[in-house]
Amino acid sequence: MNRIRLALMQINTVVGDLPGNVDRIRQRLDQVVDCDLALFPEMAVTGYPLEDLVHKPGFVADSRAALDEVAALSDRCTLAVGFADPGPDGTVYNALAVCRNGQVLGTVHKECLPTYDVFDEARDFRAGTGPLRLFRVAGVRVGLAICEDLWVPGGPVERLVAGGAEMVATINGSPYHRGKQAARESVVTATATWSGRPVAYVNLVGGQDQLVFDGGSMVADPAGRIIGNGPRFEEAVVCLDVDVDEVPTPPDGLPVVDVSDPVDRSDHLVVPPLAPLDEVGELYEALVLATRDYVHKSGFSDVCLGLSGGVDSALVATIAADALGSDRVHAVLMPSRHSSEHSVNDAEDLVSRQGLDDLTLPIEEVHRALGEALATTPEGEPVGLTDENLQSRIRGVLLMARANANGWLVLSTGNKSESAVGYTTLYGDTAGAFAVIKDVTKTRVYELCHWRNSQEPAADGRQVVPEAILDKPPSAELRPDQRDDQSLPPYDVLDPVLEAYIEGNRTRSELVADGHDPDLVGQIVELVDAAEYKRRQTPLGPKVTVKGFGRDRRMPIVNHYRG
Amino acid sequence: MNRIRLALMQINTVVGDLPGNVDRIRQRLDQVVDCDLALFPEMAVTGYPLEDLVHKPGFVADSRAALDEVAALSDRCTLAVGFADPGPDGTVYNALAVCRNGQVLGTVHKECLPTYDVFDEARDFRAGTGPLRLFRVAGVRVGLAICEDLWVPGGPVERLVAGGAEMVATINGSPYHRGKQAARESVVTATATWSGRPVAYVNLVGGQDQLVFDGGSMVADPAGRIIGNGPRFEEAVVCLDVDVDEVPTPPDGLPVVDVSDPVDRSDHLVVPPLAPLDEVGELYEALVLATRDYVHKSGFSDVCLGLSGGVDSALVATIAADALGSDRVHAVLMPSRHSSEHSVNDAEDLVSRQGLDDLTLPIEEVHRALGEALATTPEGEPVGLTDENLQSRIRGVLLMARANANGWLVLSTGNKSESAVGYTTLYGDTAGAFAVIKDVTKTRVYELCHWRNSQEPAADGRQVVPEAILDKPPSAELRPDQRDDQSLPPYDVLDPVLEAYIEGNRTRSELVADGHDPDLVGQIVELVDAAEYKRRQTPLGPKVTVKGFGRDRRMPIVNHYRG
Repeated sequence: MNRIRLALMQINTVVGDLPGNVDRIRQRLDQVVDCDLALFPEMAVTGYPLEDLVHKPGFVADSRAALDEVAALSDRCTLAVGFADPGPDGTVYNALAVCRNGQVLGTVHKECLPTYDVFDEARDFRAGTGPLRLFRVAGVRVGLAICEDLWVPGGPVERLVAGGAEMVATINGSPYHRGKQAARESVVTATATWSGRPVAYVNLVGGQDQLVFDGGSMVADPAGRIIGNGPRFEEAVVCLDVDVDEVPTPPDGLPVVDVSDPVDRSDHLVVPPLAPLDEVGELYEALVLATRDYVHKSGFSDVCLGLSGGVDSALVATIAADALGSDRVHAVLMPSRHSSEHSVNDAEDLVSRQGLDDLTLPIEEVHRALGEALATTPEGEPVGLTDENLQSRIRGVLLMARANANGWLVLSTGNKSESAVGYTTLYGDTAGAFAVIKDVTKTRVYELCHWRNSQEPAADGRQVVPEAILDKPPSAELRPDQRDDQSLPPYDVLDPVLEAYIEGNRTRSELVADGHDPDLVGQIVELVDAAEYKRRQTPLGPKVTVKGFGRDRRMPIVNHYRG
Repeated sequence: MNRIRLALMQINTVVGDLPGNVDRIRQRLDQVVDCDLALFPEMAVTGYPLEDLVHKPGFVADSRAALDEVAALSDRCTLAVGFADPGPDGTVYNALAVCRNGQVLGTVHKECLPTYDVFDEARDFRAGTGPLRLFRVAGVRVGLAICEDLWVPGGPVERLVAGGAEMVATINGSPYHRGKQAARESVVTATATWSGRPVAYVNLVGGQDQLVFDGGSMVADPAGRIIGNGPRFEEAVVCLDVDVDEVPTPPDGLPVVDVSDPVDRSDHLVVPPLAPLDEVGELYEALVLATRDYVHKSGFSDVCLGLSGGVDSALVATIAADALGSDRVHAVLMPSRHSSEHSVNDAEDLVSRQGLDDLTLPIEEVHRALGEALATTPEGEPVGLTDENLQSRIRGVLLMARANANGWLVLSTGNKSESAVGYTTLYGDTAGAFAVIKDVTKTRVYELCHWRNSQEPAADGRQVVPEAILDKPPSAELRPDQRDDQSLPPYDVLDPVLEAYIEGNRTRSELVADGHDPDLVGQIVELVDAAEYKRRQTPLGPKVTVKGFGRDRRMPIVNHYRG
């Protein structure tokens, strides 16, 4: 048996920030007192995912040069780090470098390129074709692989094990969605048990555009037990010793690159296991991290948002305050002639509980001026939906003006249910740079508020989201006595149909066959399809489900299918 | 020698419109008096590209049923038609069916799946793996293939020829961009000459979201001469006879499906060759077709747009009038305190020449009301960029209100140069459902206006775009005496740098090495990168270059690369 000391380097990289990522790698390595093998996430040198940035040959050359800077940091331990490796004919490999004593001793190319959901790797990379090698680190023959290569039956990991790997280590850039960590644990532990080898899994952490990487790095022993793991949604360096049984070299074993000899690890470094997060709490943390990283990585510190007194903007304000600090959140109350007194009071109550910056800008005068201007058109003074949209757009204009004048970033506050059915105003409530809860159904918006209220209270000891906001029926307040359920089915009826249609890819006739009311299905499907053009113009926001309205759902706008 | 009569069925399909596409196929077949083989475009049954619609198993099953309806139309001639073929494990093939006498006699699966530029076929389809077959139609062994399979060296077409094909026929869904038709002709004629076989190429026509398919179907003889072709940018049925030399069956020839015997074609049907379009005229036609199809296929008949008196909105109004009829174009003049008299006059002149519907809605009162509302904020009355954006957004709100009230669709009028550098106001001049010239640089905007002026004049005999609009310096008119060149380099300097940076994938340091001014490059690259979040929220519009700001350019928003 050999004992190898691993460092799971669960870091938060920035796409394109080559010097910054090298610095981050250096700083985090400085925290590691002593280890044999430090594992960094997929594409740690470049950030991930690169998307079309990878098609700039000059960038790829620069990133290859940055790898040499990382290799120079490998005097104390072996590094396994993800980078973009230039291939033939302008192609690029999604690659891993093994570095020691200042040298790149070998590289591994990702073979299985995910090309589904948010992933476009067949567009971005050339698939690796081996030949595979093992790296003997601290006396252990380690088989190294990248992300998807762990997941594919018959893939590289099976060949590494058959070829003599005594341990498997993978570097990953695996974004969060609901239930994802359980799926990862299942693959890691299943691989450990069928192979009889310890399996190490290191994941990226941090927000990148619509993705939020949640960390949750882990090591499983050959019995399929998680013997060490990293936290979720935060950077961490997790050092632990892994006992690795010696395996005879198979007759047709893979070539082995000798890196380092066994080290005495009789002090046996172990780490206490972390408790899993509950489902709603995990979602909340994902939204906080995504918001913080989008704002900060975009070079902003402060955000503003329209606070209506409703539950959506209350949740977004709360998430933003947790992400950025309440003094960085500028709430703008923009009551209209249709705003109820309780809405204004509820919004003010939330502001006072959380200590947000706030300002009230009534929209009445602007609304009147626009009404008068439009009254001169043949269609006359705006009424109905035109007028409802007008009010929402005035708010969008006011928010953008405040953001422009102060250098703030606007958060939009729409949820997934209303985005799905187009119960939104383009350039109105959809306006903003980041849509914090765009992939969160209305049902879950309430769950998140209740969960947050069950956690740390506001400074004054009260719950952070006023109960009145959670108790009243949802309303856009764009006409007198409006309630959402006048235009839409109740959310507990709507949300399951939306989930089956969007995430489940069901057709109208299949939904009816599933037992949903035909008229309701017809209405919902028509609304969802008709709103595609709107969704295409809305800001990005964190993907937290199997299928959000982002890179993960690429529906045509002109689409006459009604089945 | 055998003579085969082909019908190149260059039709305009609609994505998802299974009954409509079947009807279109039926109607167009009714126009064909007599032929041996009617070739329809790629995915003619379903429309193309399907994007994620293909991941709905219910849709794929419906489309397979629609193919049977098409097969029922094959009593008079053989049909080759593109459809979505269900594969194992929920996968789908991009497929071609050969139909005769009401039966599907065989299918061909696309092997090479384009996964670059706007194409996501590795995401959408399973790659075909053969086995290949030939179809003997009118005594000719025809090798059939789909689009990309023609383009790939060592691909299926080479195997079809080696396996005994006497003629090659391909069905295509190839979208337009500048220079594309010459590239197609080059591949078709090169294939004909190396193989010594006639090659038929049928392409789709029509707009679909950001793509515009331009037809231009053709047949090349073995000497590499185009012996017949279809028009560009319009539906057509082109019937012609092709003389095919008999080729001995090779020893290891591909299996042959017997479809029909030779027919006496001593009348020898030939078609006169069509002259190629000039480069600017072709671009203009692309924009007209894209606009017409987007508007009509989205269920609209009328559009509105803001007419500033500048060249961009003048061009968009002109294209819209050509696409939809001038009575369907509603121009809204929205002068501000900064609008010059000549701008208003120029806009009115264009309206009168083209007979557009128009209305003037001064924004002064609304501007004042918004200014007063914002004066109550700590940042005070809006000034500078905040105030410029405000004016643009007021116009966006007014346009959207008129569109909402009348059931019109808003066309936005921004060009590629200003979109590239972010010289736009999000939710202001970018507002709209379709951005007609979003992939047209400012330099080309002028070329297009001049080209259009050289064509059919206005009803009153004058040029459609007033000369004054083309002669004055570009200005956004959002502050007194503003000119674009106060904020931006002149367009003849800016556009080449943009093209090298965006289409050419050059880095900043490479652009400087190419001889561009370092400060200028620094300024432009920074502007382009910083505007990515804006572009992601702008409407789609027709892709007409190698790389537009749509599905063809997938850059991260958070991106710290500055190389």
